[in-house]
Amino acid sequence: MYMVDLIQKKRDGGILSDEEIHFMIDGYTNNRIPDYQMGAMLMAICFQGLNKHETVVLTSEMMHSGDVIDLSGIEGVKVDKHSTGGVGDKTSLVLGPMVAACGCKVAKMSGRGLGHTGGTLDKLESIPGLHVDVSEEDFINQVNDCHLAIIGQTKALVPADKKLYALRDVTATVSCIPLIASSIMSKKLASGSDTILLDVKYGEGAFMKTKEDAKVLAQTMIDIGKSLNKDTRALISNMNEPLGYAIGNSLEIKEVIDTLNGHGPKDLLELCLQAGSQMLMQAHITDNEISARKLLQDAIDSKKALRCLQAMVKAQGGDDSYIRHPELFEKTKEVISIRSQCSGYIKSLNALSLGIVSMKLGGGRMVKDDDIDHSVGLVLNKKIGDYVSKDEVLLKVYTNTGLSKELEDSIYDAYHICDEFVSKPVLIEEIMK
Amino acid sequence: MYMVDLIQKKRDGGILSDEEIHFMIDGYTNNRIPDYQMGAMLMAICFQGLNKHETVVLTSEMMHSGDVIDLSGIEGVKVDKHSTGGVGDKTSLVLGPMVAACGCKVAKMSGRGLGHTGGTLDKLESIPGLHVDVSEEDFINQVNDCHLAIIGQTKALVPADKKLYALRDVTATVSCIPLIASSIMSKKLASGSDTILLDVKYGEGAFMKTKEDAKVLAQTMIDIGKSLNKDTRALISNMNEPLGYAIGNSLEIKEVIDTLNGHGPKDLLELCLQAGSQMLMQAHITDNEISARKLLQDAIDSKKALRCLQAMVKAQGGDDSYIRHPELFEKTKEVISIRSQCSGYIKSLNALSLGIVSMKLGGGRMVKDDDIDHSVGLVLNKKIGDYVSKDEVLLKVYTNTGLSKELEDSIYDAYHICDEFVSKPVLIEEIMK
Repeated sequence: MYMVDLIQKKRDGGILSDEEIHFMIDGYTNNRIPDYQMGAMLMAICFQGLNKHETVVLTSEMMHSGDVIDLSGIEGVKVDKHSTGGVGDKTSLVLGPMVAACGCKVAKMSGRGLGHTGGTLDKLESIPGLHVDVSEEDFINQVNDCHLAIIGQTKALVPADKKLYALRDVTATVSCIPLIASSIMSKKLASGSDTILLDVKYGEGAFMKTKEDAKVLAQTMIDIGKSLNKDTRALISNMNEPLGYAIGNSLEIKEVIDTLNGHGPKDLLELCLQAGSQMLMQAHITDNEISARKLLQDAIDSKKALRCLQAMVKAQGGDDSYIRHPELFEKTKEVISIRSQCSGYIKSLNALSLGIVSMKLGGGRMVKDDDIDHSVGLVLNKKIGDYVSKDEVLLKVYTNTGLSKELEDSIYDAYHICDEFVSKPVLIEEIMK
Repeated sequence: MYMVDLIQKKRDGGILSDEEIHFMIDGYTNNRIPDYQMGAMLMAICFQGLNKHETVVLTSEMMHSGDVIDLSGIEGVKVDKHSTGGVGDKTSLVLGPMVAACGCKVAKMSGRGLGHTGGTLDKLESIPGLHVDVSEEDFINQVNDCHLAIIGQTKALVPADKKLYALRDVTATVSCIPLIASSIMSKKLASGSDTILLDVKYGEGAFMKTKEDAKVLAQTMIDIGKSLNKDTRALISNMNEPLGYAIGNSLEIKEVIDTLNGHGPKDLLELCLQAGSQMLMQAHITDNEISARKLLQDAIDSKKALRCLQAMVKAQGGDDSYIRHPELFEKTKEVISIRSQCSGYIKSLNALSLGIVSMKLGGGRMVKDDDIDHSVGLVLNKKIGDYVSKDEVLLKVYTNTGLSKELEDSIYDAYHICDEFVSKPVLIEEIMK
């Protein structure tokens, strides 16, 4: 078998056989197939696509290119959740404790942030002492004890995806649905949970620009999950504005704590209730949404969910007094209020731009090895549909390095204010399973 | 400027600017742009194409990626000719002497063979003593003296094409018309002649499988030539059977000598007369085909063309007695006659298969550094439209290593014999300018 023949086959619209996909992924992972051939293949796939079966086989080959986590040492149903990434997206940190408090087992491996998207691990690390490098044994024990662990990867999961993702990034082959789907699903499947809930976001700040594309991506991932015997469901959610009000690591953790204390932002809570309902049903804790929402709301009202988070923080070496007293989090040198230059309704809000401002303040990484300032970021005061008066605060900038004219302009440019009434955007468009 | 942005632009159907094409070719030639990005770009070009202007700019950038030969030291019009490659294609060796005898200046750089296609230099080297490594000064002097020189490349011409061609070969991006056109034309333009005649072949054994594709390729190359101020014309010719009867290095040289002595194969002679007529008109030696054909026929009848070949052989150190006495060429140990297993008309003849048989006998190279046996090959006795009786000779195999069952089978499989009358194929479909 020769890679050049497989490239030609795909270029001409052919269907790759299971053996051919195995040859390709195994050969690429083990450096027998060079980047230049894989680059051409990825581009051919961008044009010719992969059918459902090819996508499933590709995902399975990628999943098995490295270690696959064995979570059988954890009793009960292990649930997992993945978001395609967004600005201010702290859902995992609210949702994990909520579903854990309801009896699900959450054994989650998360990633770090790059570019405008924050990473769950970075946010967690704003809690002093907390570490995310946990051995597999401790990980399993922790989930058995407190139902919840969110850590970094313990093993070499999906090396095929690491190589492919880096290559896609430099060959303009990132935005190809079967490649996105196999990348996400191979990692989720290798992490060993029993069920997967996907939050597929669309909008200006997301990978998928349109609802239609988001639905195709979601369906592709659901098909992969089902073909490989994992209960997989998806929310299609709108990412035209940041989720909640806070953007930045410790600012977001504070919003997580607020939410688990029962006074979080409406959109974040609603997303967690809807996502959590699906997860409870996937775990067979209940069979309907009404009772699921009630269980989840009870977990907040009773502070059970907050105690789950606290237990996890403690188990991972973090100072859990920060959970009880969020005012302990380190403060920035300055908090600068950005005030509206006119009156009107907020028509649109560029989540991507604000994510980049937060990154440039030091809250995120431009390149992989950048250090992070956990204290900086933005807290919005106004979101889409809100009315703002001239000179009223639009958002606050938490900074240790002042605020350049360039960043200030970016913030103003991110807001679009108009005279007509604007209704609040729909957050969750659809639930697919 | 970033290569990934250019890949994305082309992937999405955009038009590359002159500066972008310069950045890409200059960067790739000088190893600043890696193979994996160029591989993805080539595949994107296969799907999205290049428009006329992009193709011209690409060709010009490739042409100027290395040395450009200066033939201004040669008086008169320097004509060049290029064939897209075929089995048994010894046209250059007949046509060169013919047009040189009529007053054109032929300063030609040729290549070696690879795979089923023979190379003009390999054929020439079957004449003892003849060398093709000639300095630029001697090359120019020789063309001034005897109007004709066929040599190997003297300088580093078109390094961009060398890298791109090797990459296209392993990324299934060979058969893309703007890439083929820019590859051929950049080399022809860098070799410095005043006019270019292209012989674009189509059929089973050729790059272009259909007449339509051949015409698109020819038109693309003519457009490039015209845009860069070179008189460029093209023949569209059928390559469903080998040209002439001989396949193999010294066997083909003998056929060349036969043709210049006035008793060559009809198809080879006709191709040379038609191609030669265009070349004489391009060189303004005559303005019409009738007088051009007469001049070319006279060059054969008077032996002037044969003497041109002889002068060239002598100038390049070859033993010119072989031209006068072709019986001097080294003979193979065996000549094996392959006889027809049935009677009927030859319906088709797989040129590609016969080219591969000749290569496997030792007459060609499977990989670049293979040695060549100049004496081996095939001489056909029957071609398409001929009637053959059972046990009559189809072809003769000239071999120093016997004939394996596998090769014998390949030869039989290459011939398709049927009961109904079959007419001779049309050789030249069209002349384009």
